Amino acid sequence: MNRVTELFNIKYPIVQGGMVWCSGWKLASAVSNNGGLGLLGAGSMRPEILREHIQKMQKATDKPWGVNVPLLYPDIDQLIQILIEEKVKIVFTSAGNPAKWTGLLKENGMTVVHVIANGRFTKKCEDAGVDAIVAEGFEAGGHNGREETTTLTLIQHIRQLTSLPLIAAGGIGTGKGMLTAMTLGADGVQIGSLFAASEESSAHSEFKKCIIETGEGGTQLSLKKLAPVRLIKNAFFEQVQKAELEGASALDLQKLLGKGRAKKGIFEGDMIEGELEIGQIATLINEVKPVKEQMTELLKEYNEAKQEIANNTRFQF
Amino acid sequence: MNRVTELFNIKYPIVQGGMVWCSGWKLASAVSNNGGLGLLGAGSMRPEILREHIQKMQKATDKPWGVNVPLLYPDIDQLIQILIEEKVKIVFTSAGNPAKWTGLLKENGMTVVHVIANGRFTKKCEDAGVDAIVAEGFEAGGHNGREETTTLTLIQHIRQLTSLPLIAAGGIGTGKGMLTAMTLGADGVQIGSLFAASEESSAHSEFKKCIIETGEGGTQLSLKKLAPVRLIKNAFFEQVQKAELEGASALDLQKLLGKGRAKKGIFEGDMIEGELEIGQIATLINEVKPVKEQMTELLKEYNEAKQEIANNTRFQF
Repeated sequence: MNRVTELFNIKYPIVQGGMVWCSGWKLASAVSNNGGLGLLGAGSMRPEILREHIQKMQKATDKPWGVNVPLLYPDIDQLIQILIEEKVKIVFTSAGNPAKWTGLLKENGMTVVHVIANGRFTKKCEDAGVDAIVAEGFEAGGHNGREETTTLTLIQHIRQLTSLPLIAAGGIGTGKGMLTAMTLGADGVQIGSLFAASEESSAHSEFKKCIIETGEGGTQLSLKKLAPVRLIKNAFFEQVQKAELEGASALDLQKLLGKGRAKKGIFEGDMIEGELEIGQIATLINEVKPVKEQMTELLKEYNEAKQEIANNTRFQF
Repeated sequence: MNRVTELFNIKYPIVQGGMVWCSGWKLASAVSNNGGLGLLGAGSMRPEILREHIQKMQKATDKPWGVNVPLLYPDIDQLIQILIEEKVKIVFTSAGNPAKWTGLLKENGMTVVHVIANGRFTKKCEDAGVDAIVAEGFEAGGHNGREETTTLTLIQHIRQLTSLPLIAAGGIGTGKGMLTAMTLGADGVQIGSLFAASEESSAHSEFKKCIIETGEGGTQLSLKKLAPVRLIKNAFFEQVQKAELEGASALDLQKLLGKGRAKKGIFEGDMIEGELEIGQIATLINEVKPVKEQMTELLKEYNEAKQEIANNTRFQF
């Protein structure tokens, strides 16, 4: 029991990241039904699709759950309206300034959490009145901070800057990683890549297979002149890499990227031309499993690691 | 007590990185005299200077200590000869293939440890017969792996690949960081940046001041077309950055880098033109202190974090 489990009224301080094209109602309800906090990923949903997922979610679980909303979403006003109309209780906001929307969401009775990748945003989160912070390190898949601060440094740093409940993200997909993040000062973890590779994830089976096969050095932070994003090194990535090494401008990269590439890769299964967002921890993910098993294994390893620290002489001096 | 403290016959599993222009006999002996393993950094020493430091080291401590040798060093044969003649007992090799020298060093009774940044090299280390491995993550200062794998992922991965004693490096400069690394599977830690900023470090006072002032996002992995190296973002770094963004070739970058820039920055204190190698954890280093205090604080925080994991309800579910 800690501030994160209390804040959301969940059993384990494990939040499932609201990932584009992975985090629909099936994944989010499975996580919530197994004691974590499931999040719908609104970033890849048109407003009416989000409403549909919210309504399915309401039927699929009576446990707490939430929605992740990237604040730079073009139809953000519509999305927020739907959250209010559907009486969503927990919202994670990301990719934007928490000042603009937190007040309205709180007025409507929601618990609001904002995702940051650096310490500079900590104060903005506090001023906006968020209930908790997710701090996401360089290891994370998808969009990522320009500072490239890894989870190991970031969590300790953010913990010094704020006393808000803190959820660590980036590179966490094992029970040891979870214990690590909490040792560094977090009260809980947000896990993306592992759940992207779950049976309940709405990602294409080819993408899940690709996560399983991604080994060491298989991802890299890319498109830094636009917005840094961690991608699997497929053919599309190599095109970007070549262009960047030759000094491509932001405009060149924007043209190369075009539209809908994440959908093409993650949802439609095009492993050549798609934009394949996943975290470094993919190296350690070796099998597609149901969420229930993933959660059981996370908790088992977490508690075994705790025991080992307490009892094994290799930790004692 | 664990395999790392036993292997080196030291009190705490804390190795001080053999950093160029920082790790002379003063720093290394201070670390050894305070229960860790001090390493001379041969990478910035001409052969006869190394001999001088070894001889001073022999007078400055009766505790175990070692020498870090980058295997790509131009006068490597001479360096190895000196290690043998001076009966050095512990050698950390880095930046090269462990196959070539490990045998000779072992025949001369030395304990040999090799530094790697990826799992591919684990087998090479085992085949070469090293006694332990240092695995160094993306957070680390100075030269760094092309895979950009952070300590959080790397240590768990290497632990799966080998049963050799494992020392974690990169991003570790606090007791919590140390416990984290050991939770992930390491038997000990190698700490660089923190000791670079110690009173006993042979770095220039301007460089130490610069470490203290380096905040979030203050370092970045640079010169990737040559050999990736994490640098403080000073004027020289900005020059490199600009050239890279414009598509500079490896040759262009080599010309821009020239020779002796690390010495100019770290040892001579030129914060404008120097190549300033330091790790991401510099964000959390806020004061130049004597090694004795640094060690005391590391151990205190480590043991407090252990206690907290065992006793604080925030870890229990």
